[in-house]
Amino acid sequence: MYKLLQGLRVVEGAAFIAGPSCTMHMAQMGAEVIRFDNIGGGPDFTRWPVASNGKSFYWEGMNKGKKSVALNLSSDEGRELAVAIATAPGDNAGLFVTNYPVNGFLSYDRLKEKRDDIICLRVMGWADGAPAMDPTVNAACGVPLMTGPDNYNGPVNHSLPAWDLITGAYAAFAMMSAIHDRQRSGRGHDVRLPLSDVAMACLSHTGQVAEVLESGGDRERCGNDLFGALGRDFLCKDGRRIMLVALTGNQWRGLVKALNVGEQVAALESQTGISFSGSDAGIRYEHREALCGVLASAIAEWNSEELGQVLDTHKVTWGRYQTVHEAVTQDGRMVNGNPIFASIDNPSGMNYPAAGPAASFGELPRGALQAAPVLGAHTDEVLAEVLRLPEHEIGRLHDAGIVANGGASA
Amino acid sequence: MYKLLQGLRVVEGAAFIAGPSCTMHMAQMGAEVIRFDNIGGGPDFTRWPVASNGKSFYWEGMNKGKKSVALNLSSDEGRELAVAIATAPGDNAGLFVTNYPVNGFLSYDRLKEKRDDIICLRVMGWADGAPAMDPTVNAACGVPLMTGPDNYNGPVNHSLPAWDLITGAYAAFAMMSAIHDRQRSGRGHDVRLPLSDVAMACLSHTGQVAEVLESGGDRERCGNDLFGALGRDFLCKDGRRIMLVALTGNQWRGLVKALNVGEQVAALESQTGISFSGSDAGIRYEHREALCGVLASAIAEWNSEELGQVLDTHKVTWGRYQTVHEAVTQDGRMVNGNPIFASIDNPSGMNYPAAGPAASFGELPRGALQAAPVLGAHTDEVLAEVLRLPEHEIGRLHDAGIVANGGASA
Repeated sequence: MYKLLQGLRVVEGAAFIAGPSCTMHMAQMGAEVIRFDNIGGGPDFTRWPVASNGKSFYWEGMNKGKKSVALNLSSDEGRELAVAIATAPGDNAGLFVTNYPVNGFLSYDRLKEKRDDIICLRVMGWADGAPAMDPTVNAACGVPLMTGPDNYNGPVNHSLPAWDLITGAYAAFAMMSAIHDRQRSGRGHDVRLPLSDVAMACLSHTGQVAEVLESGGDRERCGNDLFGALGRDFLCKDGRRIMLVALTGNQWRGLVKALNVGEQVAALESQTGISFSGSDAGIRYEHREALCGVLASAIAEWNSEELGQVLDTHKVTWGRYQTVHEAVTQDGRMVNGNPIFASIDNPSGMNYPAAGPAASFGELPRGALQAAPVLGAHTDEVLAEVLRLPEHEIGRLHDAGIVANGGASA
Repeated sequence: MYKLLQGLRVVEGAAFIAGPSCTMHMAQMGAEVIRFDNIGGGPDFTRWPVASNGKSFYWEGMNKGKKSVALNLSSDEGRELAVAIATAPGDNAGLFVTNYPVNGFLSYDRLKEKRDDIICLRVMGWADGAPAMDPTVNAACGVPLMTGPDNYNGPVNHSLPAWDLITGAYAAFAMMSAIHDRQRSGRGHDVRLPLSDVAMACLSHTGQVAEVLESGGDRERCGNDLFGALGRDFLCKDGRRIMLVALTGNQWRGLVKALNVGEQVAALESQTGISFSGSDAGIRYEHREALCGVLASAIAEWNSEELGQVLDTHKVTWGRYQTVHEAVTQDGRMVNGNPIFASIDNPSGMNYPAAGPAASFGELPRGALQAAPVLGAHTDEVLAEVLRLPEHEIGRLHDAGIVANGGASA
């Protein structure tokens, strides 16, 4: 983990992916991140995938490098402690990430009363406060009806929680933007980031909002084809599938050369009177059936291993379909031997490789990867150091069931 | 567009989604972003979707609020100008985002020679410099073999370029982290962000790397079910489909109440001896066929409109499947009436609603949404103001075909 954000203190009261990944990105860049949860764990504490012993791989994946405080959030006193931690003093503190309801005990106004320059970033479902999650926003934005085999009729959900992950990364950017501003202006911010707006903004940015407005209808489903360019999955002689993309003219010409299909493509060109070798990717998309027929015949003659070498030699952009297990255990670029991964001891009791920041920063040392905390492991430390509570007061809070430490969560 | 990052000057030499969306996020938060392209446009200048007049909705979606400089990047002099713009002086400049090759004329070392504290963020395919794009990384990381109907055999690509979009948002965060550090340390950074590492980091963060390592194999495909919880698509009486998610115990109990299926669920509970109403989402996943059977029968009795009202009343998390066109034109929460959207005149000559930042910042004015530039529209301005070239020199560069302005790109 890098130390670029060392000195910042971020408090998290959130669950699932978007909020927790936002703060984890910050933790992995060096921020101190304090996550508070209900005693016994929040709604994501047992989220699947889980280990055979029942502990959540998901939870410990999402909370690497954080501190954990366990509070009784049903009690007024526990809620007051949460607010106090979020709003504790310090030039580089007062940074709070949450997915709690807009008008609850963690409302911006409540927090601002305690700390005027609080930056509160709230991940939401819909902008009006109605609940939504990645799969329901996905259904509403139209993507599942564009995904999947082109002869398929129903919606196809993504298995990757893409909107959550985009929202988490964008939230980290939005938080840094708010911090950048506060350092200059002194003002805090009530930042709200609905999943639904992230989804529609992405469809705007990629031109799809304009596309449906101009055409007055929807793009056809195009299966595994890359829309608007030459890209498709192909079957090799050994039964393996590869994904091939030739977007630019250069990439297309490299592919034709690698597969030695220049003559067949030239024959198609003279048949149709169209040149396929220029910079116009769209024309290759429009004629993809004919072009992919040529490619498919050539690829069917190759075993995937040798084909890969030829494609690499010609700098063709391709990827072999493999399962997650194959990617993790057999592909030397993915986990094993990848410097962004390191094996760590996790609160589940398991030791396995986990990822630090996806970005690398030249010669800067990555530092040791930090695992997720045991739930409540830092309760006493945070009460003492952040809230400056004396020992006897911390003891009273434990006795009253308002706080718990690591032991209580086991 | 907000003004949180006002004063920063970011230079972009990139194409497609990850790099350009990174800098667009920054532009929409107030940074000055100068994108340079080859005269006539880079490889994404005509990327689909395109308008009926051939102009790219994609390009103008990805470049909102930027300045555009057109250079002859095949010439030494054009390349020198690109380096000079990227490394131009200024406390809040020297910020460069690119997807050019590691060792080319825009290498970190070349840039650092000109400006010691340059922050160069390079979006890459594979970490070793081999080419990759969203669909090929997707194939290699395993997600397409987990996506799609559960009785389907082949890979199912996502139609959403999820890895590109995650990488773009994370890149903006990584850039802000590097800026935060440079303001303190004075040092620059050689930031590298491969799509492949973003993908594997996400699979680590969501617990999937640990999952396959412990189980020794792959998760089963689960169609449109939300893995590890109760979530699936259901058909209403009127033929519309909805996505329903009940992740927490509260959400499940709300759903049971909304659909009035308490008796049927109780019957299942007494048959199986299992309680489905607690906090254990996994048990609802394991028994999803029985539970979804009950839900499906109930939902089949409702028209989607009335069902939606009942679900909303009970705060159930759901979304109606709709196409992109329906989302854009008929759903009042998505584009029309959504304050993150504004109608703007675009370089394609079309006026249509486009998205500003997905995040909102309380009372701060969003400011006017800025459209993408005409290619090369800011060439002369940037040469004069950033590089301080005199008028006669700018004239010479035009005459020599080293630079072009807006007119030349039409």
